[in-house]
Amino acid sequence: MSQSLKLLLTPYRGSRDFYPNDFRFREYMFDKIRNTVKQFGYEEYDAPLIEPVELYLAKSGEEIVSDQTYSFVDRGGRQVAIRPEMTPSVSRMVAAKRQQLVYPLRWFSIPNLWRYERPQRGRFREHWQLNVDLFGIDNLNAEIEIISVADGVIRAFGADQSMYEIRINHRELLNQTLLKYLGLNLEQSFKISHLIDKKAKLGITDFVRQVDLILNSKQKVHSVTEKLIAVLDAKTINDLPDELKSTQSVKELSQLFNSLNQIGINNISFDMSVVRGFDYYTGIVFEIFDLNTENNRSMMGGGRYDGLVGLFGVPPLPTVGFGLGDATLANFIELHGLKPDFKNITDVYVAVIGGNLIAAYQLAKSLRDYNLNVEVDLSGNKLSHQLKTASKKGLRFVVIVGEKETASKIFTFRDLLLSKEYSYSLKQITENLLNQNG
Amino acid sequence: MSQSLKLLLTPYRGSRDFYPNDFRFREYMFDKIRNTVKQFGYEEYDAPLIEPVELYLAKSGEEIVSDQTYSFVDRGGRQVAIRPEMTPSVSRMVAAKRQQLVYPLRWFSIPNLWRYERPQRGRFREHWQLNVDLFGIDNLNAEIEIISVADGVIRAFGADQSMYEIRINHRELLNQTLLKYLGLNLEQSFKISHLIDKKAKLGITDFVRQVDLILNSKQKVHSVTEKLIAVLDAKTINDLPDELKSTQSVKELSQLFNSLNQIGINNISFDMSVVRGFDYYTGIVFEIFDLNTENNRSMMGGGRYDGLVGLFGVPPLPTVGFGLGDATLANFIELHGLKPDFKNITDVYVAVIGGNLIAAYQLAKSLRDYNLNVEVDLSGNKLSHQLKTASKKGLRFVVIVGEKETASKIFTFRDLLLSKEYSYSLKQITENLLNQNG
Repeated sequence: MSQSLKLLLTPYRGSRDFYPNDFRFREYMFDKIRNTVKQFGYEEYDAPLIEPVELYLAKSGEEIVSDQTYSFVDRGGRQVAIRPEMTPSVSRMVAAKRQQLVYPLRWFSIPNLWRYERPQRGRFREHWQLNVDLFGIDNLNAEIEIISVADGVIRAFGADQSMYEIRINHRELLNQTLLKYLGLNLEQSFKISHLIDKKAKLGITDFVRQVDLILNSKQKVHSVTEKLIAVLDAKTINDLPDELKSTQSVKELSQLFNSLNQIGINNISFDMSVVRGFDYYTGIVFEIFDLNTENNRSMMGGGRYDGLVGLFGVPPLPTVGFGLGDATLANFIELHGLKPDFKNITDVYVAVIGGNLIAAYQLAKSLRDYNLNVEVDLSGNKLSHQLKTASKKGLRFVVIVGEKETASKIFTFRDLLLSKEYSYSLKQITENLLNQNG
Repeated sequence: MSQSLKLLLTPYRGSRDFYPNDFRFREYMFDKIRNTVKQFGYEEYDAPLIEPVELYLAKSGEEIVSDQTYSFVDRGGRQVAIRPEMTPSVSRMVAAKRQQLVYPLRWFSIPNLWRYERPQRGRFREHWQLNVDLFGIDNLNAEIEIISVADGVIRAFGADQSMYEIRINHRELLNQTLLKYLGLNLEQSFKISHLIDKKAKLGITDFVRQVDLILNSKQKVHSVTEKLIAVLDAKTINDLPDELKSTQSVKELSQLFNSLNQIGINNISFDMSVVRGFDYYTGIVFEIFDLNTENNRSMMGGGRYDGLVGLFGVPPLPTVGFGLGDATLANFIELHGLKPDFKNITDVYVAVIGGNLIAAYQLAKSLRDYNLNVEVDLSGNKLSHQLKTASKKGLRFVVIVGEKETASKIFTFRDLLLSKEYSYSLKQITENLLNQNG
């Protein structure tokens, strides 16, 4: 058995161990995220890790449920899945209390999600995803706010507008382009939407070939493909053909761009190739791209999905939302040099001479009453060894407790960084440590 | 499909939806826990939700793996499990970096765990469990500290010593009692340990009958059972028979009781029936009992388990630790009247007149720069309706933004609680709201 256990030192493929150093970075990200979205009035919720598999079959797009979901039969014979995304769960929760809740709801969560896929840089089988949703607003103000929140989250890490770009599209405009402007049928339109979603990965040559294959010979294949490429290449809504420019969708996009500019969000662009993988989006969709050439890809995305809550047999509810994964955010922060140095959060180490542990515990307790973080040396080793431990742990301050100190209530306070030593009362120790934190 | 989806409004059996109100209580508990254990120098870590099933087969006790674990075969043919406990994962992580880490390690985590069991009050299939572990100390100071941390966590919620009791035993003492003092063989001893663990549930009559059945006829069944009951009834270590009193285990217990008393932890008792379910404990074990008559049961427990890290083919590492579940803690807090009222964390609601949303966003942004939490009304409804929304959300302060206010930079600031209204500049609004928080 010990032989086979040796194999198990690594985490399960595609998942990560978070040692305290790694955890500190994750917690730094989540704390900043929480603080930012709460400033916009959003409240945190959570849903179960496991849901019946039907919840995902309903709307997620089939690829995810069939190939990528961790699904299994529980001991009671129920087919269940570990959540691959949060949107179906939160829609269920809102539907369950559709009548009692006060709208609009501003909700967020940072769940861990599981997908069975080949691990690669920034893609894990287990990852955490910020989900921010605004339920109950059927006008453009919802999109303006949700994009402001997404933008605010990135800026909270010290990013400036040169580092990322918000690319915006409208699902209705895409539908009109494919069905009316290009005259495709529903099936072709659906297939080409999915191709557009993968366009950057495919490359232009492959994209053209695959589009050609979907069109049938009666259609003037080349001219349709060319018209599609031209629309996809539009850099602004003004580059669109007149037939599309006059649509309600383009009017909404125009209004959204103006409003975002007015509130200081200028790193935005129109991008017809932004589709978003999930089939449930119904209106404006957006993605935020990292402009770093080493990581040139979508960091997060979202949009309007007005249909999900209504699937649960309650009146429908207009909704906009977005998601942001922990691994892509971590990449962004690291590549742009925005990751701070993390210090050990322990404020002081208590070294103990002559086995005076009870006195050491009492001193530690007094310091903790001031909300200071205190580690006591429990080893019984000699002082030089204890100081070495404090130093290896990256700690700067040590208080030494022995018989003399316990009697006099005056302690040796050592600053390992400056190699200085002081004789301090409890009050002086506390004040010095609290000053360090302030 | 909509028909079947109607069935899915409830969470999966034994799991819980955390609506913002529920989440706030959970976060209140976790924040207090984090703050307390950090005061003792503990650092947070996390491990993957899924592990290979062998990790749990190694040491968890067979019942848990065979009947209660959510295990399944992944798409790559690997037998995996959703973690039913955290101890095997953290032991694996420590073993993997056995050489690089600086000891002692003070680590904690609050993972969600899954067990397939019949849901009942305070028992869920999904629950969160604080895990606190101290690696690398082979003397009693480790037990003193870990019990202090457990005690500190409960007191952080405002509990006093009349509300709970720390019951302590020693696995070695139990082994000596069963094998030497009562003369049982290993198999009998193992079975009776498990019976003792369930003694409170079984009741004394059933317990006696089942013990009798395990003993064979050559043993003086009644006298052995009586001796066992007498030992289990010992209220202090002084009540033990001399043969046991002179053991090293009892000396350690005696020293532990003295030290805990000296640092002000007095609600402790000796209890030979404290066994802890897991087979990996090797030394002192403890449980903290809720003394409320409505919830008279173990809230948390832990002890010394020196053997786990060494199972991974690295040098063994002395370890003490404990676990505390979110549901039992929530029960304790509620039954003892320690649950605070939770306020909406939004500081101010911005009502908008005449569609002046851009001005409202700009005001909100200025307030957020002071780390205030601000909700903007996006409905476009008339003012009275907007004020009603703020009130339904439990908010006290509203700023009203219209054309006049935007031009003059003087805003109407309404206190819904006192029904008063003021004309305030941005600075005055900020100061008033920050004072409310302070």
